[in-house]
Amino acid sequence: MGYLLGSLPAGSAPVDGRDVLYQVSTIDALLQGVYDGTASIETLARHGDFGLGCFDALDGEMLALDGVYYQLPVDGRVRVPPPDATVPFAAVTFFDPDMIVPLRSGMNLTGLEAAVDAAIPSKNYFSAVRVDGTFASVTVRSVPRQEKPYPPLTEVVAEEPVIFILENVSGTAVGFRSPAFTAGVNVPGYHLHFITDDRTAGGHILDLRIEEGTAAVDSTAAFFLELPSGEDFAGADLTLDQQEALKKVER
Amino acid sequence: MGYLLGSLPAGSAPVDGRDVLYQVSTIDALLQGVYDGTASIETLARHGDFGLGCFDALDGEMLALDGVYYQLPVDGRVRVPPPDATVPFAAVTFFDPDMIVPLRSGMNLTGLEAAVDAAIPSKNYFSAVRVDGTFASVTVRSVPRQEKPYPPLTEVVAEEPVIFILENVSGTAVGFRSPAFTAGVNVPGYHLHFITDDRTAGGHILDLRIEEGTAAVDSTAAFFLELPSGEDFAGADLTLDQQEALKKVER
Repeated sequence: MGYLLGSLPAGSAPVDGRDVLYQVSTIDALLQGVYDGTASIETLARHGDFGLGCFDALDGEMLALDGVYYQLPVDGRVRVPPPDATVPFAAVTFFDPDMIVPLRSGMNLTGLEAAVDAAIPSKNYFSAVRVDGTFASVTVRSVPRQEKPYPPLTEVVAEEPVIFILENVSGTAVGFRSPAFTAGVNVPGYHLHFITDDRTAGGHILDLRIEEGTAAVDSTAAFFLELPSGEDFAGADLTLDQQEALKKVER
Repeated sequence: MGYLLGSLPAGSAPVDGRDVLYQVSTIDALLQGVYDGTASIETLARHGDFGLGCFDALDGEMLALDGVYYQLPVDGRVRVPPPDATVPFAAVTFFDPDMIVPLRSGMNLTGLEAAVDAAIPSKNYFSAVRVDGTFASVTVRSVPRQEKPYPPLTEVVAEEPVIFILENVSGTAVGFRSPAFTAGVNVPGYHLHFITDDRTAGGHILDLRIEEGTAAVDSTAAFFLELPSGEDFAGADLTLDQQEALKKVER
C-alpha cells in the first residue's frame, strides 16, 4: 500500500496546466510505422518535465526526467537532443507526486506493477509513475533509426532487436499507467522507460529486478491528445485492433 | 465532395483554445451507468458553443448550438437548463467550420455519414458536424431520469425507449465523427443529436431522411479528455469491451 502526499487522489483535484497528461499521436499509429517526428522537444517541454516517447524516424527511445529530455539510441550512448529534435510519439506531464509506494527487494516488473495497482485509488485515471532505486538488473530495449518506407514497429522489434541487460545499476524508471479504455490511443497498463543515475544507459523497460526502491505516483484525470498533421498519420489505417501487435512490442 | 472554407484541413492548423474537442467522461462509463453529473453547463460553455451529451441522472439528452445549451427530456419539452445544471458525459467544441458538404434529397443517416466521410481529408481526426436542413423525418430518442442504483444504458434504452418521429421538420443535427481508435473513450464514427428550428423538439438521432440540407464540418487534431472525480466513475469496471452494447444504444 502507498501513502498519500499533500495533494488529493486522482480526479479530486481541479485540473490545472500541470496536472494534464499531454500526448502526441497514438500508439497504434506508431505500431503502423508513423515515425515522422512532428512535435519538437521544445514544445514537449512546455507540456511536461517527465515522460517518454521516441524520436523522428524511430531513432532511439525518449525519456524525460526532472525537465531534461534524453535520447536513448541503439548505440547505447545517451544524448541530450537539441530543442528542435522531433518526436512521432510522446507522453509527458509535470510530475508532482501525490503518492509514494514502497517496493520490495526482488520484485520484477510484474510485481512492481501489482504494487502500484494496489496503491492507486482507481485504475480509471492516468498515473505517471517514477521508480527511483537500485536494480539487480534492468532489461531495456532501444530501436534503430529507420528509412522510408517505414516498416511496422513489430517488424523493427522482431528483426532488429537491440537489448541491453544492465546489472547492478542505480537509476530511474519513468512512465505511465493508462486506463484499459485508452487502448488504441496509448498503451493500456504500464509503459516505462529507464535511465541510469549516471545517465550513460537506458531504454524501453522489458523487465527488471529491484534491489531497493520506491515508486512515486502522480495521478491525473485530464488527458490532452494532439494528433500529427502529417500525411503518414492522416493516411494510416487506424481502424485495426492492434492489441496483439502491442503485446509483441511492449514486452 | 465538399469544398474547403478559408481555414486549413484537419491537423494542419496550429491548435488554439477553440480548435479542441473537449470531452467529459467516457462513453463506456455512461454505458455502465455512471450518470452522476460532474461538469456544469457553465464549465462546458467555456470549452465550446457546440456539442452534445446528457444530463445528471440521465435526465434527457443535451445539445449545444450557437452557444445555447438545450435539455431534450422525455416529456418532449425542450428546456434551456440553468448554468449550474450538470452532465455526466459531454463533448463540445467551438464550431468554426472548415468545410461545407452538400447533401442530396432522400439521404438517410447512413447516406449522410458516407457523404461526410467522402469529403473529410482523413478519418483519423475528430470532426464536428453540423447539418442544417429540412427533413422528411427525423427519428430521435431521449432518455428518462434514473434513480440509484443506476441501471446500465442498454437496459434503459431497451426497457424505457422514448422515441419521437419528427416529420417534415426543419432543424439542425449537431454532433461528431470520432476516429475508430477512440473506441472505449467516445463513439467511433458518428454521434448526432437533433433540434428543430423552433426549438420545440429533439433528441439523439436514430435515423433521418433529408429533404434539403448541407453539412458543415470542423475538423480538429486536438482532444482534451477530463475524467469525473466521482466514486461511481472511479469504481466502475472500465476494462470491458463495450462495442456491442454501444451498437444497441446508438442506433
